[in-house]
Amino acid sequence: MAQGLKVLTAVLPQDVKLETQEYDLGAQRWHRTGETLPDAELESLKQHDAILLGAIGDPSVPSGVLERGLLLKLRFAFDHFVNLRPSKLFPNTESPLAGRPDIDFVVVREGTEGPYTGNGGSLRTGTPAEVATEVSVNTAYGVERVVRDAYERANARPRKKLTLVHKNNVLVYAGHMWKNIFDRVGREYPEVTTDYLHVDAATIFLVTQPERFDVIVTDNLFGDILTDLAAAVTGGIGLAASGNINPTGAFPSMFEPVHGSAPDIAGTGKADPTATILSVALLLRHLGHEEQAARIEAEVAADLEARDGSARTTDEIGDAIAARVAG
Amino acid sequence: MAQGLKVLTAVLPQDVKLETQEYDLGAQRWHRTGETLPDAELESLKQHDAILLGAIGDPSVPSGVLERGLLLKLRFAFDHFVNLRPSKLFPNTESPLAGRPDIDFVVVREGTEGPYTGNGGSLRTGTPAEVATEVSVNTAYGVERVVRDAYERANARPRKKLTLVHKNNVLVYAGHMWKNIFDRVGREYPEVTTDYLHVDAATIFLVTQPERFDVIVTDNLFGDILTDLAAAVTGGIGLAASGNINPTGAFPSMFEPVHGSAPDIAGTGKADPTATILSVALLLRHLGHEEQAARIEAEVAADLEARDGSARTTDEIGDAIAARVAG
Ligand SMILES: CC(C)[C@H](C(=O)O)[C@@H](O)C(=O)O
Ligand SMILES: CC(C)[C@H](C(=O)O)[C@@H](O)C(=O)O
Repeated sequence: MAQGLKVLTAVLPQDVKLETQEYDLGAQRWHRTGETLPDAELESLKQHDAILLGAIGDPSVPSGVLERGLLLKLRFAFDHFVNLRPSKLFPNTESPLAGRPDIDFVVVREGTEGPYTGNGGSLRTGTPAEVATEVSVNTAYGVERVVRDAYERANARPRKKLTLVHKNNVLVYAGHMWKNIFDRVGREYPEVTTDYLHVDAATIFLVTQPERFDVIVTDNLFGDILTDLAAAVTGGIGLAASGNINPTGAFPSMFEPVHGSAPDIAGTGKADPTATILSVALLLRHLGHEEQAARIEAEVAADLEARDGSARTTDEIGDAIAARVAG
Repeated sequence: MAQGLKVLTAVLPQDVKLETQEYDLGAQRWHRTGETLPDAELESLKQHDAILLGAIGDPSVPSGVLERGLLLKLRFAFDHFVNLRPSKLFPNTESPLAGRPDIDFVVVREGTEGPYTGNGGSLRTGTPAEVATEVSVNTAYGVERVVRDAYERANARPRKKLTLVHKNNVLVYAGHMWKNIFDRVGREYPEVTTDYLHVDAATIFLVTQPERFDVIVTDNLFGDILTDLAAAVTGGIGLAASGNINPTGAFPSMFEPVHGSAPDIAGTGKADPTATILSVALLLRHLGHEEQAARIEAEVAADLEARDGSARTTDEIGDAIAARVAG
């Protein structure tokens, strides 16, 4: 987080005044107070133009507590229906696909519906007769707005290609609704070429032919899975940035690395801050500072290109990129 | 399918009498009669020791009709709760991980529950007010039996390692039930080393460190996704075999390639029969013919090793492997 703010400060023009406020949320806070995201802080967060979220998750906190009580609470409360995750093959990375040309796609993951709604339950919990359900809730309202956003993004890119990923041969109710809306909205974007893939087949193409993708639109859970895979094949999860976007502007959008918090190396100076720094670029782009966003991305690429393989600390990477974007 | 039967006939010892019966099911039948799997044929299938299923799916049939009406109907009717999908890195394949040592793991995918049950529905279908749900149904009964099967398999392998894959930080009801049962059953297998991964992280490790896996146990949908990915990284979906197994023997088990039917090349002689041939090996192993199963697998590896890159027809590949296993 410190490195992200360092680069943000370095890249901003003199006449842009940056005001930041830090919120102490996460594992330590939960251990101290039992709170994840109190209402007062949620209200206060609403006043900001954008949120930069540090990676969360810690094995000392029961699985689900911070994920549901903090991260997903923010995504749902601020109606972040566009979860934007770009994948580019950066230079000099350990991708098993290194050397493949032109991997440059973006996943538009739905962020407020699907299996992430918390619907479901458990009956006779812990007994041999337990039944546990998870309900994926999908609305035409929710699907249409994210599909439309994805068409807009595809239409603005040179290749103008949009792929819908779902599993409509098995999840026929949600899958057919997604496909019907995808086809209907598509008639308003005659220049966009469209394509449909089942999620299982999409994982194959991400590994064997990632160049085929331009924009992918998909549901919340499939998007979660595909973007970790996409990160793995395009340079590592240490480089994957994301934006939780509310395109209406009704609530602040939130930017975060795709990766978790790596509590095993927290504070050791070994964490790679690059994904957070690239999330700052997405934040700047969202707020209209395209030039600064592009500069960060170019300098991250240059920094990776210049790596000589020796280990650098978190601070050293942050300093190097901050110096580049400033200079 | 013809090549699978050819190899099956060639490998069997003289004293084993093979009786086969062909069932005309699939896209052509559906177009002709509107039927997918009539009750009489389902009854008749019950009489067999095992079923070899040809790859299904055809774009001329609406998505879901054959998947739900034939393939999933069989898996559910015959209670195929262990969907077994081995992944080995075969020689001389186009895997992006070619040259990596010791990729040899097996996915035990639950086959009768989860998001595959067909629970859910659509309200106000086709209108802007549509709501579509998909319900993942999980029972302690269903989870325990597949988890136990996976422990048995892990315990019988040299490395004795079992990884549970789920998403219990978001799907807390089903995810916690899976994890609790996994931990509880694990106490009966003290020699098995265990591990838990979220499904998104599992996709990363499948690409970057597939050697870390020995046996993976997971739910129906995650298993679907992970096994296509596993196939992609270990030599291609053209080589991935699977068994839909009812370990109780109450109903016949069913063996099939993981890939679909490739209707674009059907009948052109270009389809690679290897996944079907490897499914025959799983079928033989299930029926107790371990020696013949191992011979097929060894000769498929030898056949791949001997490839000189020139294109072979479906028949040529089948003939080559049949000659090897017989000789
Ligand atoms: C931490 C977890 C809840 C989250 C998700 O599943 O969305 C993460 O995996 C992500 O991709 O942002
Ligand atoms: C065809 C489809 C219903 C099936 C599945 O999703 O199980 C297939 O993808 C598989 O993996 O066997």
